[in-house]
Amino acid sequence: MQWYFVASLLTILTSSQGILTTLSQSNGGYKYDYATVPFLAEVFKLLVSSVLLWRECKRSPPPRMTTEWKSIRLFPIPSIIYLIHNNVQFATLTYVDTSTYQIMGNLKIVTTGILFRLFLRKKLSNLQWMAIVLLAIGTTASQVRGCGEASCDSLFSAPIQGYMLGILSACLSALAGVYTEFLMKKNNDSLYWQNVQLYTFGAIFNMARLILDDYRSGFEKGPWWHRLFNGYSVTTWMVVVNLGSTGLLVSWLMKYADNIVKVYSTSMAMLLTMVLSVFLFNFKPTLQLFLGIVICMMSLHMYFAPPTMLVDLPLTVKSAPESHPEVSIDRRTNS
Amino acid sequence: MQWYFVASLLTILTSSQGILTTLSQSNGGYKYDYATVPFLAEVFKLLVSSVLLWRECKRSPPPRMTTEWKSIRLFPIPSIIYLIHNNVQFATLTYVDTSTYQIMGNLKIVTTGILFRLFLRKKLSNLQWMAIVLLAIGTTASQVRGCGEASCDSLFSAPIQGYMLGILSACLSALAGVYTEFLMKKNNDSLYWQNVQLYTFGAIFNMARLILDDYRSGFEKGPWWHRLFNGYSVTTWMVVVNLGSTGLLVSWLMKYADNIVKVYSTSMAMLLTMVLSVFLFNFKPTLQLFLGIVICMMSLHMYFAPPTMLVDLPLTVKSAPESHPEVSIDRRTNS
Repeated sequence: MQWYFVASLLTILTSSQGILTTLSQSNGGYKYDYATVPFLAEVFKLLVSSVLLWRECKRSPPPRMTTEWKSIRLFPIPSIIYLIHNNVQFATLTYVDTSTYQIMGNLKIVTTGILFRLFLRKKLSNLQWMAIVLLAIGTTASQVRGCGEASCDSLFSAPIQGYMLGILSACLSALAGVYTEFLMKKNNDSLYWQNVQLYTFGAIFNMARLILDDYRSGFEKGPWWHRLFNGYSVTTWMVVVNLGSTGLLVSWLMKYADNIVKVYSTSMAMLLTMVLSVFLFNFKPTLQLFLGIVICMMSLHMYFAPPTMLVDLPLTVKSAPESHPEVSIDRRTNS
Repeated sequence: MQWYFVASLLTILTSSQGILTTLSQSNGGYKYDYATVPFLAEVFKLLVSSVLLWRECKRSPPPRMTTEWKSIRLFPIPSIIYLIHNNVQFATLTYVDTSTYQIMGNLKIVTTGILFRLFLRKKLSNLQWMAIVLLAIGTTASQVRGCGEASCDSLFSAPIQGYMLGILSACLSALAGVYTEFLMKKNNDSLYWQNVQLYTFGAIFNMARLILDDYRSGFEKGPWWHRLFNGYSVTTWMVVVNLGSTGLLVSWLMKYADNIVKVYSTSMAMLLTMVLSVFLFNFKPTLQLFLGIVICMMSLHMYFAPPTMLVDLPLTVKSAPESHPEVSIDRRTNS
């Protein structure tokens, strides 16, 4: 499978996620407990990966599987980072409004680039760095509130703690991604075996979170397993399967592509969701959405196009017929 | 003189132009007739160029001057294009509101790139094209109306004729620039001699326009020469000298650099004016202004930085020292 095919599929599914979640609401609220969705998605991913691993085991040669505790103990770490991230996210939102939070969220594109460079030691060209910053700017531009929209005075008027937490949140999100990529690439283990480890811990941590929420609320709404399928509609199940599928695609990308590909996929998904919302939910298309899309497309081209396509390399430039004769004379004499 | 020094000076003076013009107003209106300013600026440019040409004539070798009618008759053409452009501009504004007009004005960045390629046969790399589009997007992004601002419903709600005229206006503006560059570079004539021809026709056409306006208004405010220095303050004179100086710098750039350098200078000036307005006129800085500035800075770097600095090239090229020397070496071998 080609990475850009998986990346495109991830864009489509991530974009559907927002739309399906909106469609699963009734009268602007959830009839089901949304906190149970990520848990079920983890279980879905675990089931799919187990089946695929079992099938792989029946074939020869059998899949490579490292079963030492030294290796397995690394797999809960992404879940732990996400757990911390969720709490930081919650703390951030007590300081800043959701618009500011959403705009600060684009910072994670840049932090992913930085951690990708630092921890995975991948070298990026000057132009690729510019492309990453441009992607963050493009997604931010598309989110600028248009005139006539309400609640704009609150934008970027939060106390400094809010911004510090926002930056911490962006770093944690990037760290989780970069660490997962390190885990998936550190050896030639079967992807499905790595997934089984990742999602087993994922399911456990999600369950722990549900239990913790129950204790916090004093079992007001009953224990979590009572709420598990309560109020679930077909759309809710689609949300679960969709969320699980995006997770599986991200795993694939972490092993066979990288974090930057994932960041591009999810950023494009955000723009796609906004475009689809124009048609589905009668959102008013804005000039800034259009500008954001063009910026992100150019960023995509800058990052992934081969350098020879982007610039004229010395040899080809030299053979080019015309260009600036007078300028060069001038520069020669003046400089 | 280095072209980037002249370009920076042009940015500062163009930016001052907007601020000086605002400062020359009293109670939100002009005490003087603004239509007389461009005429006096042409006269100022003509005087400066004449003095410089006279000084050049006293030296040896004397400056190169082509005095055939075949050459001189080309110099009124830029003035004629600007005259048509002014009328198209006026017609456009009867269809679209000023915000839409201002945003459509950024189109001239792209049309300049296209005409520059078509008529002057300058080759641009894929990346340089992207930089030009990005510059137009950056300036547009900075002009997006923030929330809470009035008169936003009218944006892009004009009849189709308005947009057609807006595109025509962008093409004419680019054509005038590209044609002037062709004029200045077509031979090795003295810059000052070329300026004298250009500004003589410029002054004549501006005078003709003042006379025409007088006839149109039925000499309501008296003949134009009565209004010439009427209500002029020191600031008004600064506006005149400033406008004249930017014109002289543009001429220099047309001869020794090119239209794209000019387009970058004036776009950066627009952003600089907005930043200065935040301090001088208590404008509220917006997120979109910040994004626009970052986008334009990246565009600038993409267009002018040597390719070896932007992308990782094969080993042999990498050993070359970076930055501008390469550009001149490259261009030297081309001519």
